[in-house]
Amino acid sequence: MPLSEFALIERYFRSCGAQRPDVVAGIGDDAALLTLAPGSELVAATDTLVEGVHFPHGSPPASIGHRALAVNLSDLAAMGARPAWALLALTLPRAEDAWLAEFAAGLGALARAHDVALVGGDTTRGPLCVTVQLLGHVPRGSALRRSGGRDGDAVFVSGTPGDAAAGLALEQGRLQAPADTAAYLRERFLWPKPRMALGERLRSHASACIDVSDGLLGDAAKLAAASRTGLQIDFDALPLSAALRQALGEGPARELALSGGDDYELCFCVHPEKLPALLAELPPQHWGYQRIGSLCAAPGALVVRDGTVMEFSHSGYQHFG
Amino acid sequence: MPLSEFALIERYFRSCGAQRPDVVAGIGDDAALLTLAPGSELVAATDTLVEGVHFPHGSPPASIGHRALAVNLSDLAAMGARPAWALLALTLPRAEDAWLAEFAAGLGALARAHDVALVGGDTTRGPLCVTVQLLGHVPRGSALRRSGGRDGDAVFVSGTPGDAAAGLALEQGRLQAPADTAAYLRERFLWPKPRMALGERLRSHASACIDVSDGLLGDAAKLAAASRTGLQIDFDALPLSAALRQALGEGPARELALSGGDDYELCFCVHPEKLPALLAELPPQHWGYQRIGSLCAAPGALVVRDGTVMEFSHSGYQHFG
Repeated sequence: MPLSEFALIERYFRSCGAQRPDVVAGIGDDAALLTLAPGSELVAATDTLVEGVHFPHGSPPASIGHRALAVNLSDLAAMGARPAWALLALTLPRAEDAWLAEFAAGLGALARAHDVALVGGDTTRGPLCVTVQLLGHVPRGSALRRSGGRDGDAVFVSGTPGDAAAGLALEQGRLQAPADTAAYLRERFLWPKPRMALGERLRSHASACIDVSDGLLGDAAKLAAASRTGLQIDFDALPLSAALRQALGEGPARELALSGGDDYELCFCVHPEKLPALLAELPPQHWGYQRIGSLCAAPGALVVRDGTVMEFSHSGYQHFG
Repeated sequence: MPLSEFALIERYFRSCGAQRPDVVAGIGDDAALLTLAPGSELVAATDTLVEGVHFPHGSPPASIGHRALAVNLSDLAAMGARPAWALLALTLPRAEDAWLAEFAAGLGALARAHDVALVGGDTTRGPLCVTVQLLGHVPRGSALRRSGGRDGDAVFVSGTPGDAAAGLALEQGRLQAPADTAAYLRERFLWPKPRMALGERLRSHASACIDVSDGLLGDAAKLAAASRTGLQIDFDALPLSAALRQALGEGPARELALSGGDDYELCFCVHPEKLPALLAELPPQHWGYQRIGSLCAAPGALVVRDGTVMEFSHSGYQHFG
């Protein structure tokens, strides 16, 4: 059923997200009008998902909608920010009611779960491509940065990295696994859970933070470089899910935990003096994070096992090059 | 020359826009950190340009960069807002130095002209598609809206609509014209000049405003609908450029001025009591706008010539339907 752009926006997106009192004008004017609370800094991120690059052709539309918002939420989590407003730029080959309804349901459920209002956007015709811009706020001067780490800081990661990359491989038929294992890993790719609560709580503990989206080793190395330190990761300390171990075996699972993308976990650093408070106030077993290494003085990113430096051929996913 | 995504962003986009003291953190972290002046409302817009849909294949990269920002600037002009910060989501098939350098030059020149800082973004591989998110501000409660018009308000348009649509037709070889005429009209498509100064000044004069991007008649009708009024446009009052008249002839030029897209002019309404102040403070010959009709009580959008209602088959460009 062909719909005009206006009717399409009305039908699927006007009531898709949360309702917020700080939205003076949302969808339906040339731009959105928003009120930022006094004492706050504005936090803004944007990320694009392209069909065939960031998700396989024929992916469930609800998962595409969920992931398009989740990848941006994860960027705000890494700043310790609270999300508030999203804009959606949706390019799609044709306007199909069923596809749009599912896409909006996936995006909308995650938006409402994090109190995010959808306040504007643009729908255009073309190859399937979804860009979300996410705006949020943080108390002035309190945002987590990549650059705050220091030599000697402990390095942590949340969750079990590598699962999403294995889930994508299963989606694409490049990997086989028993049904339960496959279902768990696919879910980790299709429905990432950005660490919003952890990000906000880390503001009073972490010296630096980055979102793990392009591979843990590469992203942790970016944090270290921004902090002008080196990085040492303990290969045997990498947290692995039982499913990833079962699907790949121990060694390949650890390698994928270092290199696989699409995790949307947080990698963060904590100064040694602040470790007792972190562990007391945010118990690792409850919050789901684990120490994986340290920042060090010598530049570069090393992975160490039993005191020996390991060699890897690449360090994270690169879109170009 | 293949570049990593990181090097690509560094090289072309880090210093592309204006430098602003209200950018706490720009490109290079998970999200941008920005300071909004007290007493302001945040204004946010996003628009996408897709190759083959919004610009022809092989368009000059600098024009694509210019237009990607211009279409968003125009949305902020329609709110009476001042732009401040942009995020760029750039999807492109391959990273070519020459293309990126020209694209960044076109985007950057317009950004610096309007004091817009490029504070973040995302580069991805895929079919050429450019989404800019533009953030700006307006004194609290003073934004222009589509919905403020009233029965009896005068309706104005800036510039000479229809030129850009003729320029696109020339770019695509669907129209022929003498060299000078063609050069003028092509420029109007390739290098639109969003009406930022006019938009800000109109805050104290206009009752409603909309950006003319999808065709004057259709966009003016959207303004009237949002204002819960009807609209009457005087066909003979439409402002035409000499070039458009020469390229198309008088009648077709007037029709294209009503239906053609990509103008990025402002259509605005002024209450009769406020007309003297408007005309005195913003002289039309200096600011480049002209009265084209009125809002009226009866719903619907009419085009009138010599007291007779004209019939048109469509009212503006629709991406779907």
